[in-house]
Amino acid sequence: MAENSDSEAAAISQHALSYRPASINGEFLGKHIISVDQFQRRDLDILFDAAAAIRKRIRTHDRGLTELCAGKVMASLFFEASTRTDMSFQSAMRRLGGDVIAVSNGVRFSSMYKGENLSDTIRATGCYADVIVLRHPEIGSSYEAGYYLDLLNGRIDNPTVAISGGDGIGEHPTQALLDIFTIFDQKKSLDNLAITLVGDLKHGRTVHSLAKLIAYYDASGVRLCMVAPESLAMPADITDLVEAHGIRVTQTEDLRDVIAETDVIYWTRIQEERFADGAEYDGIKDRFIMTPAVMARAKADAILMHPLPRKHEMGTRSDHDILDADPRSIYFEQMENGMFVRMALLVKVLRGVYV
Amino acid sequence: MAENSDSEAAAISQHALSYRPASINGEFLGKHIISVDQFQRRDLDILFDAAAAIRKRIRTHDRGLTELCAGKVMASLFFEASTRTDMSFQSAMRRLGGDVIAVSNGVRFSSMYKGENLSDTIRATGCYADVIVLRHPEIGSSYEAGYYLDLLNGRIDNPTVAISGGDGIGEHPTQALLDIFTIFDQKKSLDNLAITLVGDLKHGRTVHSLAKLIAYYDASGVRLCMVAPESLAMPADITDLVEAHGIRVTQTEDLRDVIAETDVIYWTRIQEERFADGAEYDGIKDRFIMTPAVMARAKADAILMHPLPRKHEMGTRSDHDILDADPRSIYFEQMENGMFVRMALLVKVLRGVYV
Amino acid sequence: MAENSDSEAAAISQHALSYRPASINGEFLGKHIISVDQFQRRDLDILFDAAAAIRKRIRTHDRGLTELCAGKVMASLFFEASTRTDMSFQSAMRRLGGDVIAVSNGVRFSSMYKGENLSDTIRATGCYADVIVLRHPEIGSSYEAGYYLDLLNGRIDNPTVAISGGDGIGEHPTQALLDIFTIFDQKKSLDNLAITLVGDLKHGRTVHSLAKLIAYYDASGVRLCMVAPESLAMPADITDLVEAHGIRVTQTEDLRDVIAETDVIYWTRIQEERFADGAEYDGIKDRFIMTPAVMARAKADAILMHPLPRKHEMGTRSDHDILDADPRSIYFEQMENGMFVRMALLVKVLRGVYV
Repeated sequence: MAENSDSEAAAISQHALSYRPASINGEFLGKHIISVDQFQRRDLDILFDAAAAIRKRIRTHDRGLTELCAGKVMASLFFEASTRTDMSFQSAMRRLGGDVIAVSNGVRFSSMYKGENLSDTIRATGCYADVIVLRHPEIGSSYEAGYYLDLLNGRIDNPTVAISGGDGIGEHPTQALLDIFTIFDQKKSLDNLAITLVGDLKHGRTVHSLAKLIAYYDASGVRLCMVAPESLAMPADITDLVEAHGIRVTQTEDLRDVIAETDVIYWTRIQEERFADGAEYDGIKDRFIMTPAVMARAKADAILMHPLPRKHEMGTRSDHDILDADPRSIYFEQMENGMFVRMALLVKVLRGVYV
Repeated sequence: MAENSDSEAAAISQHALSYRPASINGEFLGKHIISVDQFQRRDLDILFDAAAAIRKRIRTHDRGLTELCAGKVMASLFFEASTRTDMSFQSAMRRLGGDVIAVSNGVRFSSMYKGENLSDTIRATGCYADVIVLRHPEIGSSYEAGYYLDLLNGRIDNPTVAISGGDGIGEHPTQALLDIFTIFDQKKSLDNLAITLVGDLKHGRTVHSLAKLIAYYDASGVRLCMVAPESLAMPADITDLVEAHGIRVTQTEDLRDVIAETDVIYWTRIQEERFADGAEYDGIKDRFIMTPAVMARAKADAILMHPLPRKHEMGTRSDHDILDADPRSIYFEQMENGMFVRMALLVKVLRGVYV
Repeated sequence: MAENSDSEAAAISQHALSYRPASINGEFLGKHIISVDQFQRRDLDILFDAAAAIRKRIRTHDRGLTELCAGKVMASLFFEASTRTDMSFQSAMRRLGGDVIAVSNGVRFSSMYKGENLSDTIRATGCYADVIVLRHPEIGSSYEAGYYLDLLNGRIDNPTVAISGGDGIGEHPTQALLDIFTIFDQKKSLDNLAITLVGDLKHGRTVHSLAKLIAYYDASGVRLCMVAPESLAMPADITDLVEAHGIRVTQTEDLRDVIAETDVIYWTRIQEERFADGAEYDGIKDRFIMTPAVMARAKADAILMHPLPRKHEMGTRSDHDILDADPRSIYFEQMENGMFVRMALLVKVLRGVYV
């Protein structure tokens, strides 16, 4: 019998495919964080309060924060690189007094990377850690983590929680949570906001999850504008879901149609490789590059968000420097918020306490 | 003069080859942990007590544990990936309140990896750390670490202890210690146990070290059964040593001969590459795959151990799922015990205290 | 529009090129540590005092040290491997009670490594960390870090300090600081010392920075002897600067001319690749290998320093063993001092306190 092939090893088990993580329903303790579908408005409000409270305690150098996760261990299990997510979670755990373990040589070079089922890797790590942050290139991997940790938790007297750090082109729930917190935090409410999502809305998991969370929040009077090339439009299941929550959806290929009435601009990148026909890309690309000239058309109190990293979709290096100096550009604040939201999640799943 | 070649750099010094680490003799403080040959029954009993006590304190969320290694720094120096050993040691040190440093980009990419003698690397690390966990592909590397740290400790006023995390196909003492602790913990005694080791017993360092520790423990009435293809049988020096300690040894190629009377089944993998003749492998491979059907022949109170990771030697993915649900399969408990045993070792070599 | 090319991504911005880090002038709090040019004698004396005090507190197991940076987070951002610098900074931060975050898979495999401007990477990391230790292959990268962190610090309510861990063949200020501390610590004063720098003095950033710091210290009666092949001589701008501070400079190709009167021998490697003509290298190489026979000519109270790692420039493995046993060889003490000096820097830039 030969060694398992890579594809076998990587395949997601059938158990995982039918696994559904528990809804939060106001109680985070011991729950895996795998999908935005676990969240409702009440859960988001709890998280927003906690993130804001934590930020305030950090600003005032409140040393009591380091008691919140003292004695807890987080394992950072990144099967693909994602520097910001990785460092953000690490910093979050440390600032709560918890500890972090990671594979010294990187998962890429470990025995885990090839030939072992993720289900074993997850359970092995679950023997050492209280919470596992998993980043994996395969869709559904965090569901598999949840399923097998539940099995392990039935045997080992030390339950371990999984938090998804992104699974392939699937979900990346903590990114969506920090995004919606940033909007709420900047605007103090989602009611009556015009939110515009720009870029490759077909493949972008970030914008899918954010759109769903905005829907689940059930604010009143929200308008969601989707700006994308026709071939990269937001999938219908998501626009349907959003509209079912009473949100008015507009779709266009040209930001200029909507920028003047937009409160929140969420910018993402379009990759040339998505176009079979280079000429099609050439025809639309200029409409999908944010520059100081584009931003000049936006409202005085609009905010410009971006999940980062950014490349050509924000123009040249000097465009960057000008945009960065614009007080409406809040993508670094957004990034910092990622740490506060992850701190809030870690405290709540590990300790259940309010902060 | 050209740069040292890799092989030169990697060569183990003659000093190291003649180095013998100190016997434990009831006192761990300041001693390198390099070989199972340092241990006698008394030392193992001390370690078993400490590991069990630590487990209990973790289960009861005893925060006093984090005082035991507070202010101490462990360096994780892994020249080859070994995710479990690495994370297990890291988690152990963290839960004792100690800190861990590791090479951010992995040793593989560091200046240490090529062209520098291990003896310099070890001493440089010894300048920063109180304990070094070394994993290195070369047999004898942990002996070299011990030798050169002893030299450094004579000069720098901050003695550093080495713990082997495995050296090539040589020794991996902490694996053997966690294995024998798991047997003791599950069975409450080694007396009168029938322990069966299965797989490639010729090359497997895990089973060599475990067999030696079982011998050193000097329990009464122990039977050790070696199940391996004839070409991969346990080396005679180890069976001789074991028998010299009064253990009855059986050797067979077929687990079915002994499974019904076995208390402890220790399963390991056979690699096809070990066979010059593929037909020979095809002829025996089915006898060396653990499946639910095989386990059905085992005693109701037998335990099934495996050092993990596992691949084809435990059958298909659905075989795994069935075996994992069998209460006799204790390989995840075994893995968790690794953390407790390593915590016990760290406390004892760094602080000398009883826990 | 194509992705930014690597060279674009790596290019240092014009802003960075004109950036000058603040002089220390007796106050380290909140200041980036980027260049030895920030230091004057007073600053070095403060640092020497702090490093010596910290060493004493470590030797006496003073647990109060871990209060000094408690709650602070250091990000280890190594774009090229430098194991010693990395581990030294990590150990320094840990021993002060601070926390360390690093990219789990190494920067080399992260999204940061390719296609993103360093300016964004630095600011993203600045959102999570209180201090960033940056090692980057490009000259000027730490200036860029300082410039963009200053921009970020104007927006995010959590200022972040950069410390250079070496930028390419540019500067490596903490190496020079630990070197001059070691000389001061061993000799109790720089006055009237004869210090000899040996090796490739043209390309060696270590010796450039050390020579400058010796000059800035403005001790009296210092002699600096430069021993290098003519084609690898110390650049004139540095010898000019040194002489302008009243230091007598000697240059020679042969250590034997000066070794008998030297108090401090600072040894570095010459790389064969620097010579267009192999015959030229063959003609001089033996004069640039430190061996026990060479050391026999040195004063009884001379000290032999080396920044490590060492390769062929200290001869064979058995030469190493003999040199290492010589009490005048203080390169491991020098390495340990690196941790004390970095602890002193971290405390002072993060807390400003005296220790």
